[in-house]
Amino acid sequence: MNKKTNLLPLIAIFVGLTLIVWAISLTGDVRGFYSFDGIIITIFGSIAALMVSFPLKVLKNIPNTLKVLFMAEQEDKHLLIVTFVEMAKKSRRDGLLSLEDDLELVDNDFMKTGLQMIIDGVEPDVIKRVLELKMETMERRHSSGQEVFLKFGELAPAFGMLGTLIGLITMLAKLDDPSAIGAGMATALLTTFYGSLLANLILLPIAFNLAEQSESEIFVAELIMDGLLEIQSGTNPRMIEEKLMNYLSPDEKHKLESKFEAAEGNVANEKI
Amino acid sequence: MNKKTNLLPLIAIFVGLTLIVWAISLTGDVRGFYSFDGIIITIFGSIAALMVSFPLKVLKNIPNTLKVLFMAEQEDKHLLIVTFVEMAKKSRRDGLLSLEDDLELVDNDFMKTGLQMIIDGVEPDVIKRVLELKMETMERRHSSGQEVFLKFGELAPAFGMLGTLIGLITMLAKLDDPSAIGAGMATALLTTFYGSLLANLILLPIAFNLAEQSESEIFVAELIMDGLLEIQSGTNPRMIEEKLMNYLSPDEKHKLESKFEAAEGNVANEKI
Amino acid sequence: MNKKTNLLPLIAIFVGLTLIVWAISLTGDVRGFYSFDGIIITIFGSIAALMVSFPLKVLKNIPNTLKVLFMAEQEDKHLLIVTFVEMAKKSRRDGLLSLEDDLELVDNDFMKTGLQMIIDGVEPDVIKRVLELKMETMERRHSSGQEVFLKFGELAPAFGMLGTLIGLITMLAKLDDPSAIGAGMATALLTTFYGSLLANLILLPIAFNLAEQSESEIFVAELIMDGLLEIQSGTNPRMIEEKLMNYLSPDEKHKLESKFEAAEGNVANEKI
Amino acid sequence: MNKKTNLLPLIAIFVGLTLIVWAISLTGDVRGFYSFDGIIITIFGSIAALMVSFPLKVLKNIPNTLKVLFMAEQEDKHLLIVTFVEMAKKSRRDGLLSLEDDLELVDNDFMKTGLQMIIDGVEPDVIKRVLELKMETMERRHSSGQEVFLKFGELAPAFGMLGTLIGLITMLAKLDDPSAIGAGMATALLTTFYGSLLANLILLPIAFNLAEQSESEIFVAELIMDGLLEIQSGTNPRMIEEKLMNYLSPDEKHKLESKFEAAEGNVANEKI
Amino acid sequence: MNKKTNLLPLIAIFVGLTLIVWAISLTGDVRGFYSFDGIIITIFGSIAALMVSFPLKVLKNIPNTLKVLFMAEQEDKHLLIVTFVEMAKKSRRDGLLSLEDDLELVDNDFMKTGLQMIIDGVEPDVIKRVLELKMETMERRHSSGQEVFLKFGELAPAFGMLGTLIGLITMLAKLDDPSAIGAGMATALLTTFYGSLLANLILLPIAFNLAEQSESEIFVAELIMDGLLEIQSGTNPRMIEEKLMNYLSPDEKHKLESKFEAAEGNVANEKI
Repeated sequence: MNKKTNLLPLIAIFVGLTLIVWAISLTGDVRGFYSFDGIIITIFGSIAALMVSFPLKVLKNIPNTLKVLFMAEQEDKHLLIVTFVEMAKKSRRDGLLSLEDDLELVDNDFMKTGLQMIIDGVEPDVIKRVLELKMETMERRHSSGQEVFLKFGELAPAFGMLGTLIGLITMLAKLDDPSAIGAGMATALLTTFYGSLLANLILLPIAFNLAEQSESEIFVAELIMDGLLEIQSGTNPRMIEEKLMNYLSPDEKHKLESKFEAAEGNVANEKI
Repeated sequence: MNKKTNLLPLIAIFVGLTLIVWAISLTGDVRGFYSFDGIIITIFGSIAALMVSFPLKVLKNIPNTLKVLFMAEQEDKHLLIVTFVEMAKKSRRDGLLSLEDDLELVDNDFMKTGLQMIIDGVEPDVIKRVLELKMETMERRHSSGQEVFLKFGELAPAFGMLGTLIGLITMLAKLDDPSAIGAGMATALLTTFYGSLLANLILLPIAFNLAEQSESEIFVAELIMDGLLEIQSGTNPRMIEEKLMNYLSPDEKHKLESKFEAAEGNVANEKI
Repeated sequence: MNKKTNLLPLIAIFVGLTLIVWAISLTGDVRGFYSFDGIIITIFGSIAALMVSFPLKVLKNIPNTLKVLFMAEQEDKHLLIVTFVEMAKKSRRDGLLSLEDDLELVDNDFMKTGLQMIIDGVEPDVIKRVLELKMETMERRHSSGQEVFLKFGELAPAFGMLGTLIGLITMLAKLDDPSAIGAGMATALLTTFYGSLLANLILLPIAFNLAEQSESEIFVAELIMDGLLEIQSGTNPRMIEEKLMNYLSPDEKHKLESKFEAAEGNVANEKI
Repeated sequence: MNKKTNLLPLIAIFVGLTLIVWAISLTGDVRGFYSFDGIIITIFGSIAALMVSFPLKVLKNIPNTLKVLFMAEQEDKHLLIVTFVEMAKKSRRDGLLSLEDDLELVDNDFMKTGLQMIIDGVEPDVIKRVLELKMETMERRHSSGQEVFLKFGELAPAFGMLGTLIGLITMLAKLDDPSAIGAGMATALLTTFYGSLLANLILLPIAFNLAEQSESEIFVAELIMDGLLEIQSGTNPRMIEEKLMNYLSPDEKHKLESKFEAAEGNVANEKI
Repeated sequence: MNKKTNLLPLIAIFVGLTLIVWAISLTGDVRGFYSFDGIIITIFGSIAALMVSFPLKVLKNIPNTLKVLFMAEQEDKHLLIVTFVEMAKKSRRDGLLSLEDDLELVDNDFMKTGLQMIIDGVEPDVIKRVLELKMETMERRHSSGQEVFLKFGELAPAFGMLGTLIGLITMLAKLDDPSAIGAGMATALLTTFYGSLLANLILLPIAFNLAEQSESEIFVAELIMDGLLEIQSGTNPRMIEEKLMNYLSPDEKHKLESKFEAAEGNVANEKI
């Protein structure tokens, strides 16, 4: 497992905001785009509605959800397949109990649970049901994180529009001074601008990114479950390799095949 | 089961409304945002359309639905797992009939039904079918509650817009006095404001909250069904514990594990 | 079966319309909201598009669909369960053929078909398949009725907007007389008003109501199928009662339980 | 099979267009609603985007798709059921091979394939799989036709709005002459009008109609598959009749029942 | 397999753009529609949001995805069926091992994997599972490509609208000079125009096209899997031909049937 900080989303948000500020500065005055009240209404209004929508427990979990975003903990599918092939060879040679040593090297919680059950001699059906249950819980946890951002991304423009409505109604009610119309409408439109920027540059993309990551984590979990069950049923390591490689895209597959061939070349050399 | 009033949604709605009033008071006159006619059209118009959409029985049930919102009756998943482990130990020691004593302690209706059937010696398949039927009925009941708020949340902005159209048409028809345009449009926009505020701060978040609660109640019901069926089939308590713990998120799981270890420590101590 | 006219939807539509008229009369002139041409375009335009969308057969069926709306023919689930329990007792005492007498009392077509097959000694699998087929046909028939209103509810605002576009383009083309602008725009907006009112107060709520009724009729059909199959397989009446009661909500269940207890009390009294 | 031209959609489109022209002529000048450039942009712009969206093969198939629209080739479900009942009687009397004569009378391709396989003695499972495959291919073919119209119906208003944007930008850029504003905006709005009219009166209703027809064709295919498999398994003709009648709505069923009774009456008479 | 460049989408985009430029040139000044800042905001703003939404790996893959668009690598379903029929004849005559020669002629990766497993004597169930896994991976890979364009197509109009909001707010803030209003609004609207054009002519149609291609590739994969499994189970070649022909539309089927008949005629001639 290679945990590393993935700052790309943060950088991209920063670049996007810079771009917007630059665009404003070209023709207008950036300070004119700052409205304390507007920010309060758009952001805190949405947050109030979020607190009606979600139980507190889910909202408290947002920092954890964001950690997922910036700390891409993506399994290396190549490495997993190589590991499974090695484990398959070992277990066919020395029995399933010999995998106990590998248990300590594994730090993926999902794989650890499954491997432990194999060593304990649990029935394949039960292992499958337990691992599927784990996947379902994982999906539920992820999806509640995504939904907060998705909902926030829907509420921000809605409260932006509410702010604009307030601004318009106020302005229209005292239409005595025509020279104030422009400034009034400009201020009114600011909250729509805030809500739309927040939603389209930050909130909805984050929600989407989380969904993508969740989906790919589930896919890796399927690979792991598949590999574990094949090892338990004593399948030929060569066959396991071929089957699991179908979880890779053609490009990834090609890279791994050269690796395996190189490895076999080494073995061949060693034998000589 | 720990029933407690959950006032968070109510507080959040109140905070949101205060925020809006504050924002209005900054530049305009809060009294200018009150329009008796506008409120009537937006709210009662939507309610009329709601009464076309739903049978009376469903609408009468709204107070009950709201009670769910403010009276979070969330099962403690930790406690449930501990209970199941205890029940599994007992039933393996003293037979399934010994669970009769526990029956009185259970006040979750779903669990009670299942446990009663286990004691009565009903076949696992039948128990499963009956409990799944109960879940389906539960889901249907919940979803009809959510749908009222969802529909209300769609209708309120639609009737708000109808009110605005009425205001605009009336104003445009007597455009003799240009000075009245502003005031006319301001009044016209009020109903859009009402509809949007009602939908985005109150109705749609409530509908969403109810959906979240329903989903999590179904998840707990799945945990209960799983636990009951494992007890009936005489599974090892240790195994039941491990399986059911997969219904918890990693955080919850970690907390419960330390609890179990502490408990076992106590048992060990007692034995000494 | 208790057929009775359900005038609630009709009354609610009437109340909604009155509300709108009242709101108009407060500030404007109700007569100014009548435009013969606008009504023609919005309604007949939508109807033309409806006739492209649906085969004539479906459109001819609209009066029947509306009859469903105003003639709620809702099965009494309580009564059904009591009936099934009675039938189960009878058939265990006197054989399945003894149910022939009940056949005449049943006027629900779905139940009649199933009961007849049971008496004819048809295999449970075949009965299940035939009843599921009946449910599917029922669902299809209902859904085509709903879809007409749903589609109408989408088309009405679209043609309303088309009317407004026509009005705007005409007005803008002859912008010589600024005093006519207001009146022109007011007239143009009328069709949007018609389309939106029609959709949100009448058409979409009716579509929704039909969907709700269809769903609940399917639910009752599931109850009936379940009850019939249990009777055929000779299940204990007490067990049938318990199973079928899970089709009821907790409230309904509670009411029925007291009824059963009362009934048993009577039986007990009679025996004495 | 009764193929007949179904001109209703064409007539309804014509009526709708006439209505629109009439509405325009009431207050404005119909010639003012004609803009060669606007039509080009709205229609050919959408078509360019359609050609990016679909492979050429699908677009070439549009005339065939339209033929389906205007040449309703609806199976007569009554006739099909009568045919199946007759075939069931015959095959029970003279064996499945005797159905070879009927093969030539059948001109529904789907039924022909199935009947041929029955006569050839193909296994029921294989027949079912082949017929289901045929249904899937049929559904795919239909749905690609619908999707062209659906997509066209989405693109037309989008390109209409693009045309309006072009018109507005051009007009606003040379705002020297206020008297030209009205005419400029009128022209700009024309493309939105074209796109919306095209989508709501013609394209989307056609897409919907095709979807409805496809669904009902699949339903008939299910009836045919069901009937054929029952004949192969030698089911009682009376039973087949009862089962297949569940594919009819209550109205259709009632009509057919009187027919069957009349037929039996005739047979009775003949016997006398 | 016939790989050939499919320039239709590229040409259609070019035609669409030409059409738009032509439409602009009719009444306005094409140069007035160029705004460097507007293009930067609309395109690079969307790209920043895309980089928040997707992991870098997916974005790097865009050129490959576009290659799919312009290099239609569509299997010839006719040829595939003919190949399967030939292979079925050969394998019934000379055993499954004789298919080893064909392996080299196949350059479809999916078919190659399946055929190799058949020759290796892998169980049908395993082959099916492996091929279904390959299909799933294929679908996932395709769908992540489509989603980039779909998301881009949603973000471009959103950032276009943000640009317009910036322009409007800037313009309204300095409303001193009424003569600048027109030009200001025209510039503001340009980004909406860019975003809408980009989305409706280029991005969304590309996303749709990719989805269509992916779906049809999956359909071909189903045909291949079906054919391979029938060959393995030793089905009659005639039967395989008939079954696989159901993957063709009636038109395609008709063409292939004449081909087969011609082929049989040739064989007949040769025999003579």
